[in-house]
Amino acid sequence: MNQAVILAGGQGKRMKAPIPKPMFQVLGEPMLAWVLGACEQAALSRICVVTGYEAKQIEDYLGDRCRTVLQAERLGTGHAVQQSIPFLQEDTDGSTLILCGDAPFIDSETITDSLARHEAEGNAVTVITASVENPFGYGRILRSGSGIAGIVEEKDATDEQRSITEINSGCYWFRTADLITLLGKLTNDNAQNEYYLTDTIAIALREGMRAGAYCSRNPDVVLGANDRQGLLKLNTAARMAVMRQHMANGVGFSCTDGIIIERSVKIGAGTEILPGTILRGNTVIGENCVIGPNCVMEDTVVGDDVRLNTVQAYQSRIDAGVQMGPFVHIRPNSHICSGAKIGDFVEIKNTTIGEDTAIAHLAYLGDSDVGKGVNIGCGCVTVNFDGVKKSRCVIGDHAFVGCNTNLIAPVELGKHAYTAAGTTVTTDIPDYALAIDRGVLHIKDGYSLRKFAVKGKKGSKDNK
Amino acid sequence: MNQAVILAGGQGKRMKAPIPKPMFQVLGEPMLAWVLGACEQAALSRICVVTGYEAKQIEDYLGDRCRTVLQAERLGTGHAVQQSIPFLQEDTDGSTLILCGDAPFIDSETITDSLARHEAEGNAVTVITASVENPFGYGRILRSGSGIAGIVEEKDATDEQRSITEINSGCYWFRTADLITLLGKLTNDNAQNEYYLTDTIAIALREGMRAGAYCSRNPDVVLGANDRQGLLKLNTAARMAVMRQHMANGVGFSCTDGIIIERSVKIGAGTEILPGTILRGNTVIGENCVIGPNCVMEDTVVGDDVRLNTVQAYQSRIDAGVQMGPFVHIRPNSHICSGAKIGDFVEIKNTTIGEDTAIAHLAYLGDSDVGKGVNIGCGCVTVNFDGVKKSRCVIGDHAFVGCNTNLIAPVELGKHAYTAAGTTVTTDIPDYALAIDRGVLHIKDGYSLRKFAVKGKKGSKDNK
Amino acid sequence: MNQAVILAGGQGKRMKAPIPKPMFQVLGEPMLAWVLGACEQAALSRICVVTGYEAKQIEDYLGDRCRTVLQAERLGTGHAVQQSIPFLQEDTDGSTLILCGDAPFIDSETITDSLARHEAEGNAVTVITASVENPFGYGRILRSGSGIAGIVEEKDATDEQRSITEINSGCYWFRTADLITLLGKLTNDNAQNEYYLTDTIAIALREGMRAGAYCSRNPDVVLGANDRQGLLKLNTAARMAVMRQHMANGVGFSCTDGIIIERSVKIGAGTEILPGTILRGNTVIGENCVIGPNCVMEDTVVGDDVRLNTVQAYQSRIDAGVQMGPFVHIRPNSHICSGAKIGDFVEIKNTTIGEDTAIAHLAYLGDSDVGKGVNIGCGCVTVNFDGVKKSRCVIGDHAFVGCNTNLIAPVELGKHAYTAAGTTVTTDIPDYALAIDRGVLHIKDGYSLRKFAVKGKKGSKDNK
Repeated sequence: MNQAVILAGGQGKRMKAPIPKPMFQVLGEPMLAWVLGACEQAALSRICVVTGYEAKQIEDYLGDRCRTVLQAERLGTGHAVQQSIPFLQEDTDGSTLILCGDAPFIDSETITDSLARHEAEGNAVTVITASVENPFGYGRILRSGSGIAGIVEEKDATDEQRSITEINSGCYWFRTADLITLLGKLTNDNAQNEYYLTDTIAIALREGMRAGAYCSRNPDVVLGANDRQGLLKLNTAARMAVMRQHMANGVGFSCTDGIIIERSVKIGAGTEILPGTILRGNTVIGENCVIGPNCVMEDTVVGDDVRLNTVQAYQSRIDAGVQMGPFVHIRPNSHICSGAKIGDFVEIKNTTIGEDTAIAHLAYLGDSDVGKGVNIGCGCVTVNFDGVKKSRCVIGDHAFVGCNTNLIAPVELGKHAYTAAGTTVTTDIPDYALAIDRGVLHIKDGYSLRKFAVKGKKGSKDNK
Repeated sequence: MNQAVILAGGQGKRMKAPIPKPMFQVLGEPMLAWVLGACEQAALSRICVVTGYEAKQIEDYLGDRCRTVLQAERLGTGHAVQQSIPFLQEDTDGSTLILCGDAPFIDSETITDSLARHEAEGNAVTVITASVENPFGYGRILRSGSGIAGIVEEKDATDEQRSITEINSGCYWFRTADLITLLGKLTNDNAQNEYYLTDTIAIALREGMRAGAYCSRNPDVVLGANDRQGLLKLNTAARMAVMRQHMANGVGFSCTDGIIIERSVKIGAGTEILPGTILRGNTVIGENCVIGPNCVMEDTVVGDDVRLNTVQAYQSRIDAGVQMGPFVHIRPNSHICSGAKIGDFVEIKNTTIGEDTAIAHLAYLGDSDVGKGVNIGCGCVTVNFDGVKKSRCVIGDHAFVGCNTNLIAPVELGKHAYTAAGTTVTTDIPDYALAIDRGVLHIKDGYSLRKFAVKGKKGSKDNK
Repeated sequence: MNQAVILAGGQGKRMKAPIPKPMFQVLGEPMLAWVLGACEQAALSRICVVTGYEAKQIEDYLGDRCRTVLQAERLGTGHAVQQSIPFLQEDTDGSTLILCGDAPFIDSETITDSLARHEAEGNAVTVITASVENPFGYGRILRSGSGIAGIVEEKDATDEQRSITEINSGCYWFRTADLITLLGKLTNDNAQNEYYLTDTIAIALREGMRAGAYCSRNPDVVLGANDRQGLLKLNTAARMAVMRQHMANGVGFSCTDGIIIERSVKIGAGTEILPGTILRGNTVIGENCVIGPNCVMEDTVVGDDVRLNTVQAYQSRIDAGVQMGPFVHIRPNSHICSGAKIGDFVEIKNTTIGEDTAIAHLAYLGDSDVGKGVNIGCGCVTVNFDGVKKSRCVIGDHAFVGCNTNLIAPVELGKHAYTAAGTTVTTDIPDYALAIDRGVLHIKDGYSLRKFAVKGKKGSKDNK
């Protein structure tokens, strides 16, 4: 069957971090994940990743997702592929795709179409190429009548060859049996004493094998990053591509500044995304929402017609018609039901907020089940932790929880229960009942005259 | 008199939303509003808007602002203008400007100057044109000695004609009487079976009428949007143009990222706008302020020397010398008087805050009248809603409201009144008086030793 | 000795603010400070700044940092330098560098290398030049075999001269004695009746002195700003240059939008900076942190492995492994020790937070010393101000401060002390003791049925 070998042993010294280069992230995912995803989307399930620098990080990241083989010494790209020979020998029937783990923009269409060309032409090797405006630094493709006549590196190219704009992406399809043969013939007879994978092309041609090229419609397949600036460019390209795709789907952007949307995010038509909004992971946004400015959403599912203004939400669910913000924090495992309104400086954690419930300001609801039509006053706190264990609060439908109420969990307020402002609730409250623990208000006349005498009646305006 | 017909019947299918194309927004206003505004600024008060797709949305938006006529079937731009013939026939004396409702950057100077040319040359029709670097896709203007010889579309143009960089904006001045005549001669004898308004030029020339062209100094008059990417480009062009205008007026920007300032906003010289700031509607900012980062202001009037850091304010007034933020929410109908200081996590709603009053942190003042020189402690809440009705709190000058005070509205604190921390105030407090409802503090020795024994004295550090 | 004269008398009328042009800021520092810094880095300690418009602002800013001399009338650049003749006469041995106070990107390498050339060639004057793509508007350098033959201004240049891309930066090294001589020969015999410093070149050549040129490797040395748009461009160039330098050091940026990092800031390798983050002054960030989105840090020192999400911090210290946010405000003189977790809507001011202490939500800690392993509940407030004086709170290690606790300063909680939710603590609490001042909770059955009867049992869902 057809299979892939992904080269992922590189270090990326100029990144200045002890991370294998393919593990640096583009739009929240390691570059290696982009390459693997393209393979999987192209139905290549037999994959071997060649590791090298900090191999364990890649092994840990991949887990059981695919095979790995270690290139213990780094002696060139050909040497890297040689490490996969035992993998290749397990199934020599089809073709093998060689990919670079740090060139994230390879796509499944390029993989599929280049394979079709490779097979139709009966090539031993098919180079995946791209046509670029500025080919400087890349290997140029020398076309011949019936295939390619070779690849010439920048430093070896004549002026005429340098003007060629079709370049080598570093990705190749090989007939697997031929690849094993060609790898066996590689030498390190060069200045660096390395085994170069590109040398297989010349060997194949010399041996009378057929070498072809497939020029991808996506010139970004060649892009990689050697330093943080290059990585920023990849991120920018990916950010803009993702946003263009959402625009094609009917999502509105009036300014894309500071917006980062990971590839996995889905957004419905008619929704507007405002600047500074970051959408990560398995976040799904419905239709006709307005999200932003400055929202951060992670693995959160949002219904239609939702308005979120400066909200951060993690691993939660926000149903249709909810309005939140500004300055709201929704922590994991929360569920805000349809029509709820959450105002400013509110935290919700591991809590369900019922339909049409209002939490207008400055409150914390944690480990709680809040019913529908409830009103939570300003300053209310669910006291869900006593220093030893967490407990839940249950608040019945249409309850009215007065301002600065403390609910000492575990506790339950009945339907239409009412708590007076400033009450600390330590026991369950029946349906329709009022809970109040208000003391006696003492008024002491002339107090300020005496107190502020020490400051010469300057008053009390300064509280920095 | 002179008048205008605005074509606003288009759908914009690639926008993927059931909204007429001229209703998509650029910088917070429908494109149609930009076009109408340019007409009105050029003193064209007699305006007819031709609707089509989702006509009701445009009719509802326009209200009494101008006339509309429905193009029930969409049979081309000429057919659209034909629908306005009854409107045209009401006043055939002057000239009629035809505009595209989805080309927002037409400006009053172009309208006025092209009319002057139109009248001076005694033209039956004057095409408004622009000179652009890349004319691809636009109709090219064929100039003749004394006017124009025609307009040739991209697909019909010779190579030489394609190199012409003066293009048709799709806007025209017609002598009204001639327009009615020309509309009567339009045919749909073409591949699409549509009536094209541009055909009127050829008919006019054939009939011996004079056709001229006016090349606008503003090449953006031709810009429109067919999809969300195009709309983003219009928004970006408008955003940058607005900011350039403010810079010319002496407003400072050290980084324009994420800044969106609607056209209606006014900003004084010497003010700095920091990134991520969104200014909407009738917002007016004074001189020498620092606004941002990440402020959102809507219909809010701000005095001189104000410092707002991460503040959202809506339909409110903020006087000179106020300092606010970070993380403040000013809701509608609030008035923050001169010299007040509002700190972090504070909401003000429908409330007046007097001069030099300080609200340093974590407080909610709603439906209240707060005097001058007042100090509002952390955690103070105006309990303005009892579940049935809203009531107001009044806080006298130089009052000192202790931390976590609940003011149960309606209630009034006198001048220099003082509330102890944690007090719930349920009755009016006289001038200079102290209000306190503190209970008895019980101390139980060794409590933690017993309580945390269940956890093996692990302590109490984990409150996630 | 060698010395520098910096011309800083210009007004910048188009800036529309009563500020001398060199005092407008690029990346948080006056342009003059950039120029001074380059001199000081190049070991030029004898510096004279020529002031003019609003001279006092510059004098106040400079203080004792360097000499100033006032150009009372503004009669040209030559006249400006003439004002420094008394300064020059104090030490005529070496050479004098003339710099523009509003061209901030002069760098110490250019200063040092141009001086070396100036001295090696034995020039009377050496013009610092740059080679730019678009020389329009600048004086062009006319090279001769052994030096330069003159500088020709745009308006006086032939077509051939206009094609020269080496331009005058406006900065020059003069042998000090020759400069004094040349200044004495300047005339104002021109259209503007001004004394031009560039005329000294022609005079020097005429007198048989040697004039040379040094072309800087940094073409930005010529950049200045005449209006707010120009100032924005300088800021953008500086912002991107600073970020590129951090990237070279291993700092990660996935999107640079809205990020402003002043030159003085230090950031460790492996740290990621997210959009909208502003880092000012003497801020130092450790390694492997994640800072942002939307953080604002000023003069704050942050350890390694810190995670800050939407945090503003000023003049404080945040130790390794701290996690904060979203929505946190750290005010001056705070110290957050290693492993502490600060959650949402928390303000810390002039306070030490001990190791591994948790403050999860909605709290204010001011003027306090909080121990290690402490848990601060939601809504807790240190009542540090009584209207007359500020006092401190001390919270012992492993204390558990219940929700909505008021600590009336001065007060001390012992180790492992525990306060019940809603308690107001007015006296010191011993180690391991519980403090509680809870009243009696009254429950009134059927209250809501009666209360909401007035609204026809509509419930209590609306609290806008």
